Amino acid sequence: MPGFAIGVDLGGTNLRVAVVDDSGKLLEKLTTGTEVGRGRDRVITEMCSDIQRLVGNFRTAGTLYGIGIGMPGIIDMRTGFLHESPNLPGWDNYPVRDDIENRLGTRVVLENDANAAGLGEKWLGAGRDFDDICMFTLGTGVGGGIVLNGRIWHGMTGMAGELGHYTVEPEGRPCGCGNHGCLEQYASATAIVKIAREAATSGNAPELARAIVENPEFSSKIVYQMALQGNEHAREIFRGMGRALGIVVGATINALNLPMFVIGGGVASAWEMFAPAMFEEVKVRSFVYRATAPKQTGQIERDATLITRALLGSDAGLYGAARLPMLLAELAVRAESKERKRA
Amino acid sequence: MPGFAIGVDLGGTNLRVAVVDDSGKLLEKLTTGTEVGRGRDRVITEMCSDIQRLVGNFRTAGTLYGIGIGMPGIIDMRTGFLHESPNLPGWDNYPVRDDIENRLGTRVVLENDANAAGLGEKWLGAGRDFDDICMFTLGTGVGGGIVLNGRIWHGMTGMAGELGHYTVEPEGRPCGCGNHGCLEQYASATAIVKIAREAATSGNAPELARAIVENPEFSSKIVYQMALQGNEHAREIFRGMGRALGIVVGATINALNLPMFVIGGGVASAWEMFAPAMFEEVKVRSFVYRATAPKQTGQIERDATLITRALLGSDAGLYGAARLPMLLAELAVRAESKERKRA
Repeated sequence: MPGFAIGVDLGGTNLRVAVVDDSGKLLEKLTTGTEVGRGRDRVITEMCSDIQRLVGNFRTAGTLYGIGIGMPGIIDMRTGFLHESPNLPGWDNYPVRDDIENRLGTRVVLENDANAAGLGEKWLGAGRDFDDICMFTLGTGVGGGIVLNGRIWHGMTGMAGELGHYTVEPEGRPCGCGNHGCLEQYASATAIVKIAREAATSGNAPELARAIVENPEFSSKIVYQMALQGNEHAREIFRGMGRALGIVVGATINALNLPMFVIGGGVASAWEMFAPAMFEEVKVRSFVYRATAPKQTGQIERDATLITRALLGSDAGLYGAARLPMLLAELAVRAESKERKRA
Repeated sequence: MPGFAIGVDLGGTNLRVAVVDDSGKLLEKLTTGTEVGRGRDRVITEMCSDIQRLVGNFRTAGTLYGIGIGMPGIIDMRTGFLHESPNLPGWDNYPVRDDIENRLGTRVVLENDANAAGLGEKWLGAGRDFDDICMFTLGTGVGGGIVLNGRIWHGMTGMAGELGHYTVEPEGRPCGCGNHGCLEQYASATAIVKIAREAATSGNAPELARAIVENPEFSSKIVYQMALQGNEHAREIFRGMGRALGIVVGATINALNLPMFVIGGGVASAWEMFAPAMFEEVKVRSFVYRATAPKQTGQIERDATLITRALLGSDAGLYGAARLPMLLAELAVRAESKERKRA
């Protein structure tokens, strides 16, 4: 009988819960607003109710591996506590994993959302032919996930992969993390809106100013649409974004020499607007990239460094989250078979 | 019977060959000038003669694991060819490993010198209690070595660990690698001399100017001595160096969350002159460091990120090189025992 797992992507605005089988097929998905403002307990209650509904629907479909949950912030993998999660106020220093496990009576694995997205792309997306990949998720913030030998690289305390806080401009824009000039201040949706507003305020970008006035919910998507329509100020914003991203991708190639870099998250949809500047920058910044660049961009070649768009779109984190309990089960099976050999 | 290996550190100026036993004891060491200018063949001949002499001396002392050679440049681990080694002109695209193996009739392992130094520090030095460390070697250039799970992380083509070519200042000093503002342009001995000469030329640092005139072989060591004696311009140079290093160490902590960062190479001797600025910078740049900083600097604590001086000095690369064939032998033994279990 095949097995399945529940993947949860708990964002600042959306809660998505899905059933994924061990071949990577998405069987059912529920999407609801997170309404973080209603408090931690409400959100966890709703999440658990969604999970239970889906588990019920698939009760006879196979073995349940467990529940994997991707969430913003830094997760202490040992204790299952959440740290530094500005998008989930009130969740700090709370035993998130234990609470959910107690409510569901099933194994729960928590993971940082960008790490989960990296694992999803490694399993079923752009990284599926590689053991080692690096993922950048460009969303409200900029997250990163490093997968080495097929596993998320957690580092000592589960805090690895914070690629959004690479310093791009030592004296640059202040970042919420306490640094100046972090990648996140140039390549996130939030940054794009901020930079567009500044350009509008300066008086040099009247079309941007008009768009801001006309759209009470002015967003990075609108900047992207204006860039598509040929607006030079909007295009310049994406070129600046591609440059910042290229600096960090180049540094990461020099440091880790991985074969696959995946760019995902909502802002990655603007690929054609920022990718040319990004590739230009990576070529300049990284001699390791120049030595290993594929002859054709985007082509899989032996010993070539690929930089490509994520394939799973906004579902990457959902697939990756579902994969977490499956990997744990695999590890357990392997450990058991070793034990049996020894006996 | 104990085993031993030969470690070779082939630098641009010195050739050092040593016998190291499997407990890490250095039994004998030969140091000669490399005289790279006399050509590749001369250098290899001299290296092989030194190796044979030492192997002869220890013929009855135990099993010879093999020869490990650390050298500047990028090594193709599969073919044993050397790439991009400006300090060893004429060695590019030459089957270095095969040539030496043919001459000696023994297994030879080549490794990038900074990687070898990282492995040495992991084996016997500052990193000996850790499985995962990151090493910076501040010498003529700036090299890096990343050790994960006790092994050098080579990446796809053996080019990983090029931490000297992190972009610190996007519009900064031009680097030989084709980039601008690489760490190497701020934190190497070469950079320190260059920056000191610029300060002298500017007319604002008369003591530096005098030192340059008086010392035909003006070096980073002289800048360091002047800093020690309280010269403010010399001190400023080391503060700038510490700042650049701190930016990169901070970014690497955010990316990899390793427990141990080791700073080695000749310039690391100036530790007290650059370390305060480096630590200040790391604190600002890396929230992961702030979350994991040890309560006491330099103290080993659970779940703390340590940044510390290398312990093996200029011998780190020599020990690491000797360790290479030992690790290969360990791998072979493990593979054999697996094979035997299967049969």
